[in-house]
Amino acid sequence: MRELWEQPITSELVYQGPIINVRRDEVELPDGRRSFREVVEHPGAVAILAITDDEQVLLVRQYRHATGEVLWEVPAGKLDMGEDPRACANRELAEETGYRAQSLEPLVSFFTSPGFANELLHVFLATGLKKGVARPEADELLEPVLLPLEMLERMAVAGQVRDAKTLAALCLYRLRR
Amino acid sequence: MRELWEQPITSELVYQGPIINVRRDEVELPDGRRSFREVVEHPGAVAILAITDDEQVLLVRQYRHATGEVLWEVPAGKLDMGEDPRACANRELAEETGYRAQSLEPLVSFFTSPGFANELLHVFLATGLKKGVARPEADELLEPVLLPLEMLERMAVAGQVRDAKTLAALCLYRLRR
Repeated sequence: MRELWEQPITSELVYQGPIINVRRDEVELPDGRRSFREVVEHPGAVAILAITDDEQVLLVRQYRHATGEVLWEVPAGKLDMGEDPRACANRELAEETGYRAQSLEPLVSFFTSPGFANELLHVFLATGLKKGVARPEADELLEPVLLPLEMLERMAVAGQVRDAKTLAALCLYRLRR
Repeated sequence: MRELWEQPITSELVYQGPIINVRRDEVELPDGRRSFREVVEHPGAVAILAITDDEQVLLVRQYRHATGEVLWEVPAGKLDMGEDPRACANRELAEETGYRAQSLEPLVSFFTSPGFANELLHVFLATGLKKGVARPEADELLEPVLLPLEMLERMAVAGQVRDAKTLAALCLYRLRR
């Protein structure tokens, strides 16, 4: 892998915000030339593919200001500083949907936008679901919905699931069966 | 959907760079309260799930400075200003791998990180592949590899595919079969 690696030369913090920072790094390429890379620093996140005993998937409909659209997504949320991904998954599932899971199993971890961001997203499969009361964060307005897995897969094929993590989670679930 | 929508109040450009910009927007939530949203502006991109007649998938191994890892990814690239996604897909496939496709079919479009970025990624299914010579961009060092689809799916289940767009593309291909 050494022949693809880029050596960092300089790093400049160009934006610092409540959720993301942005760096502008100069790197040396394997052939000795130099280039600049913009990097969005993100704390990382979890997503939860929560499936009921009768194969319904717990989703949230959420308006995403960055995209200008209401999206169908699996429940998800940012890691708090130093938070364990599994603990974060339990917390976000309960906050966003009210459900609690008897079993929470890691499915996959992936980068959402490796070209410009370091966000690593950990996906868990949640089963043995028990319903409670949702308590979303103050500035988070979302609508939990149960959809049959088969319907969600048809929506994905029809282009109605426009969220990368939800499609990636469906992929892993499908491939493991 | 109206009840989830957020009304933009102010917008401040806090970083302007060669590939991304960052805005800090104030929004009014449906219940009248206000909040801030950081938005990474990205030109959008394409990715190509290119599959040979004997079900091998064309991948690139690429070091991603933002992640610090060499990733397995489907070929992909940013849209040039005003560029048609299909034209971009043909261009990126040829540049990164040397292959040309007789058929290029839209599979799905999705947001890679809807919580903080507007990057919309268009995935195409490329078939009828003909080999030529790769001409990657000057600062892009990558290694094209052909892998049997079945092996790639096993790698995904084993957690070795750590790129959201590649997993999402595999999902759509699997679901359509």
